[in-house]
Amino acid sequence: MKTISSIFLLLISTMLYAQITESPSKEISLQFQLSSEGKPTYSVLYKNKIVVKDSGLGIVLKDVPSLESGFKLIATNTKMVNEPWKPVLGEVSEIQNKYNLVVYHLLQETTKRKIDISFKIYDEGVAFRYEFPKQENLNYFIISDEKTQFNLTDNHKTFWIPGDFDSQEYVYSETKISEIDNNKLDLNNAIALKSIAGRYIVQSPLMMKSPSNIYLNIFEATVVNYPVMHLDVDIKNFSFTSHLVPNAIGDKAYLQTPAVSPWRTIMVADDARKIVASKMILNLNEPSKIEDTSWIKPMKYVGIWWEMHVGIATWDYAGSQNAQNSLSQELLPSGKHGATTKNTKRYIDFAAKHGFDGVLVEGWNVGWEDWFGNWKENVFDFTTPYPDYELKEINEYAKSKGVKMIMHHETSGSVANYERHLDRAINLMKDYGYPAAKSGYVGRIIPRGEFHDGQTMVNHFNFVAQRFADNKLMINSHESSRPTGYSRTYPNYIAAEAARGNEFNAWSTGNPPAHETILPFTRLLGGPMDYTPGIFELKMNVYDKAKTTQVHTTLAKQLALYVTMYSPLQMAADLPENYEKYPDAFQFIKHVAVDWQDSKYLEAEPGDYLTIVRKDKNSEKWFLGAITDENARKSKINLDFLSPNKKYKAIIYQDGKTADYKTNPINYQILTKTVTNKDFIQLNLAKGGGTAISFEPIN
Amino acid sequence: MKTISSIFLLLISTMLYAQITESPSKEISLQFQLSSEGKPTYSVLYKNKIVVKDSGLGIVLKDVPSLESGFKLIATNTKMVNEPWKPVLGEVSEIQNKYNLVVYHLLQETTKRKIDISFKIYDEGVAFRYEFPKQENLNYFIISDEKTQFNLTDNHKTFWIPGDFDSQEYVYSETKISEIDNNKLDLNNAIALKSIAGRYIVQSPLMMKSPSNIYLNIFEATVVNYPVMHLDVDIKNFSFTSHLVPNAIGDKAYLQTPAVSPWRTIMVADDARKIVASKMILNLNEPSKIEDTSWIKPMKYVGIWWEMHVGIATWDYAGSQNAQNSLSQELLPSGKHGATTKNTKRYIDFAAKHGFDGVLVEGWNVGWEDWFGNWKENVFDFTTPYPDYELKEINEYAKSKGVKMIMHHETSGSVANYERHLDRAINLMKDYGYPAAKSGYVGRIIPRGEFHDGQTMVNHFNFVAQRFADNKLMINSHESSRPTGYSRTYPNYIAAEAARGNEFNAWSTGNPPAHETILPFTRLLGGPMDYTPGIFELKMNVYDKAKTTQVHTTLAKQLALYVTMYSPLQMAADLPENYEKYPDAFQFIKHVAVDWQDSKYLEAEPGDYLTIVRKDKNSEKWFLGAITDENARKSKINLDFLSPNKKYKAIIYQDGKTADYKTNPINYQILTKTVTNKDFIQLNLAKGGGTAISFEPIN
Repeated sequence: MKTISSIFLLLISTMLYAQITESPSKEISLQFQLSSEGKPTYSVLYKNKIVVKDSGLGIVLKDVPSLESGFKLIATNTKMVNEPWKPVLGEVSEIQNKYNLVVYHLLQETTKRKIDISFKIYDEGVAFRYEFPKQENLNYFIISDEKTQFNLTDNHKTFWIPGDFDSQEYVYSETKISEIDNNKLDLNNAIALKSIAGRYIVQSPLMMKSPSNIYLNIFEATVVNYPVMHLDVDIKNFSFTSHLVPNAIGDKAYLQTPAVSPWRTIMVADDARKIVASKMILNLNEPSKIEDTSWIKPMKYVGIWWEMHVGIATWDYAGSQNAQNSLSQELLPSGKHGATTKNTKRYIDFAAKHGFDGVLVEGWNVGWEDWFGNWKENVFDFTTPYPDYELKEINEYAKSKGVKMIMHHETSGSVANYERHLDRAINLMKDYGYPAAKSGYVGRIIPRGEFHDGQTMVNHFNFVAQRFADNKLMINSHESSRPTGYSRTYPNYIAAEAARGNEFNAWSTGNPPAHETILPFTRLLGGPMDYTPGIFELKMNVYDKAKTTQVHTTLAKQLALYVTMYSPLQMAADLPENYEKYPDAFQFIKHVAVDWQDSKYLEAEPGDYLTIVRKDKNSEKWFLGAITDENARKSKINLDFLSPNKKYKAIIYQDGKTADYKTNPINYQILTKTVTNKDFIQLNLAKGGGTAISFEPIN
Repeated sequence: MKTISSIFLLLISTMLYAQITESPSKEISLQFQLSSEGKPTYSVLYKNKIVVKDSGLGIVLKDVPSLESGFKLIATNTKMVNEPWKPVLGEVSEIQNKYNLVVYHLLQETTKRKIDISFKIYDEGVAFRYEFPKQENLNYFIISDEKTQFNLTDNHKTFWIPGDFDSQEYVYSETKISEIDNNKLDLNNAIALKSIAGRYIVQSPLMMKSPSNIYLNIFEATVVNYPVMHLDVDIKNFSFTSHLVPNAIGDKAYLQTPAVSPWRTIMVADDARKIVASKMILNLNEPSKIEDTSWIKPMKYVGIWWEMHVGIATWDYAGSQNAQNSLSQELLPSGKHGATTKNTKRYIDFAAKHGFDGVLVEGWNVGWEDWFGNWKENVFDFTTPYPDYELKEINEYAKSKGVKMIMHHETSGSVANYERHLDRAINLMKDYGYPAAKSGYVGRIIPRGEFHDGQTMVNHFNFVAQRFADNKLMINSHESSRPTGYSRTYPNYIAAEAARGNEFNAWSTGNPPAHETILPFTRLLGGPMDYTPGIFELKMNVYDKAKTTQVHTTLAKQLALYVTMYSPLQMAADLPENYEKYPDAFQFIKHVAVDWQDSKYLEAEPGDYLTIVRKDKNSEKWFLGAITDENARKSKINLDFLSPNKKYKAIIYQDGKTADYKTNPINYQILTKTVTNKDFIQLNLAKGGGTAISFEPIN
């Protein structure tokens, strides 16, 4: 840490105060300023170049003067911190958490109100937050707006999705900042509920690349008791401003001192691998609040799910008709119901045979006849099975086979109803020994007027994680607000969807090949994603000749996703009969680990490609995943990550010679080699392709 | 029933269709009309005079054409109904339910949508509702507005409180319709949360008296899955229009066909006793949904409550300081906490000694240090007792004394939080054997933007009644929306407050003497009220010489309220030590029944006086309650309600010679007489006074 240099003093002559704090490596510097009007601002330098220009900080309060200016600096605290920790489940067994902390204690002289602005400067970026200490003149308060700016220096390339308060299930647009425009989006994208908040608003995490090849990422960490932050875009000045998601009456957050905002994060690197490898978001969260974490276990699972997406089964018992008030009406079975006792036993048998930990069953409970699209409050009760689903019999059968059942809680967005039933739903899980649930939030939120990304819903998702933890249960939420590292604090929050998942490929224009090369730079920074990879029958015309939809990857890429899309909960999403058609390729899904002692990010370029190798948490096995976008790609991989003086059997699952995600996606080949850490492996990725490799030590 | 006479046809020449339906007694007639534009209207006649002039009917829907006109009558159904029923708890052991039903089936020709308007014509009034049958062109719909008119014929006297979406805890104003004006109200009325919706809006039940001495009452019954109806007032034309309470985003009700609105009711009589005696509101509700009702029992109770209102104890353990986040903070006891183990045992002893069924304890649970006024979401958890309240010890002690404990659930308006905890709260009650809870809703509602009287909250109150019924528990809600007869359907909804209760006398300008003579014509029509009578120390300067507040009745009137304010749950609200000062007067409270086989309404004039006698459900005892307003009153009561050829010991608790609610409220005298059904008793009520009499057969 050092006081400001004379160069900066010239640039900021209206400043009353300025101080620079450096990251441990000294590559990143944070400069905090207080203007002569007492307005706080900050800027960020990377390798001595400004990457975030002087940007405003401030909070607008409801009914009382705003916390934007008129501040006096009353104290500064600095600290060098180095606190490595061990995640319960993770990409690595130990996470480095090293940063320099500086806290500016500010007093607003007219109101006698105090706020602290706290900065953590990491080697991969800067994080800061607003802190509202306990004080005489500020107790309860309502945040009307947050005025955090991110003034960038150039017209960077961005990977953006629109600022939507209810959904992140978009395909990324890759444009310059000046070209961001929600009016130009093709909204025929199969997203059920869209609440785009304006023409120039995007979501974070926002991944960018500068004309001089600097990678930047704006995001947030530890969104707890606060709404999600979207970003208003000034396309002319390359500036972003925080846009908090409102509640039903337009307020943003209800707080009581002592309180803190989430961390606002800016990652910077000249190597994209540093961004994708960063654990900064997790680091900024609180340590685990669960003392005994022995019951938190990684899981690979199969389930009754993809067959509904491809249209050969239904969630509902009576077929997709509108059976009004279906909870009380007599239902006539359609014959296509997926969640039957018989079908579930088939999945249990399959899971047991192939070593999967769990079986998810969607559509097991009454309510699906009339569940969607009508803002209906009482859809599901989370405890009543359909007449053809024998809860007890199924759970006993699963137990006899050593397989765990995964509960499914679709809320249809009616969170009030879910919360009313949550204890009974949890008790049912405990009665039958379910270790985990997948939850869903498809539809407009009830309490009406709330959004998926508002403070109320953020609190709901966190509340569910806490209630599940109280009962030693794991949760995997779909259509929730995107995670910001809360899985560090509640590691039973084992995964989430909160982005455009694989299922969109089944029935919509789907996900372009670049999609999976962007998610690790955006959505996955906040925590594991249940992307549901592993589709082998990639073209939907196999189910119905009239269908033209398909998954936009090769089969080999589907395998590689198990490595590139980190999650301790991974589904083998395709149908058992499809895996049985390709048993050799299926071996990789059976073998791949989901919890890791180490990860190395070998190659990375957002929107283009990604190659990661990871070492199983519990063995000496390594797994490699390499993926590409719509372009074919060749690459030579140095195996120096392997242990020296050891031989490994490498099984290489790669695209076949004529593989192409569009025309011939299934085409693959499997090679087996003996390798050491002195060897190289040549990767040959087809268009939309990938390679997956397992390395197993030989004796 | 008859078709319309030629006189009416002349009056309504623009009508396409008109039909009159009479009540069983033929005193009341309902005329339904359909104009040439297909607009439905109705009018009401009483003894051949119009009391409600031609008044519009209609529903405005969101986003689709309104259901107001363009209707064709496609069918009419009529039926004479006589369905007496036996309430589980009640004022009488059998309730007559006799009316003529007429249903007009309407088709809106342009939209092909159907609604039915259903009328029930009772001898004491007319009820009607909108019915939305299951149909092809209407499934889910949102009600934006209801356009039900009540066009009255003259500038009646009204007993009104302002149309407030969050509170009914007002003193009644007694003015002509033309003088209704919320801007003229004194709002220094100690109501914590006021949301008055405009200058000319009042609440129902709205009691009126015409210049020709006809009594009218506009109310509603069976408010289920619908908001409360307030009434916009046209003070020039003596007309009222329904004003439904909105939700957070301005919508009124979310419905799905088949659905019905609540019943809109107009009672008419030339004798006020017919209004106060009417069971029409209960009759319009659905029969009990609880099959085994053996566990639903009337209760008389005492409790730790009044001592907080008079200021000698506190709800909170640490005194009324703001202990931020009190659930997790260490608390230092103030020494004034009411809900201690020791104090509770004192109340249990008192209840056991004097034959009370239950003991209520408020302030037993953590959270009260910082519970009110800040729209705080997580205040109470409903299960964690204060450190000086030994749940197990207290409940075992109560059991050993044959006394039931009554649970207390203050929600502070944070309904979302209550619903999240409800199952755990109920489980705690069941673990310890609590038969009933009192709930409280003081404060702004969370989900934020909702009002106490909106559809969301109506559903909440009903949901709690259902959940309590599922668990064989009774509920008594305070600060809830006012009941509209739901206690017929869920008789475990044993009482509610939902009006200005006795406690306002302890710390505010209080309730004027007329207050209790109006409530039976308004609030009590919807169901039992937990008014908490029985205050003996009527002037608060007994606790603190500086205090000038007082209860605005005599002691004798406090006794009479046990008869005039019907509730199967009655509190003896004063402190044990105060009852021990006046043991002879206390005898009445100990003796009086709370569940009845018969009730007779001997004298009634809203705002002036009320005399009721009731016969105990389980014995031959009768009890009389007579009350007056600020004026003294003499009256001679014919005892012909007593059984013939029987002698009764009558104990008369009456105002003393110098009694006066202002100057000498405690002054009372007790006389004992032997009487028969041939005798008369002279009542002498002081200003703000009353008389209570018990009649016990002598062998």
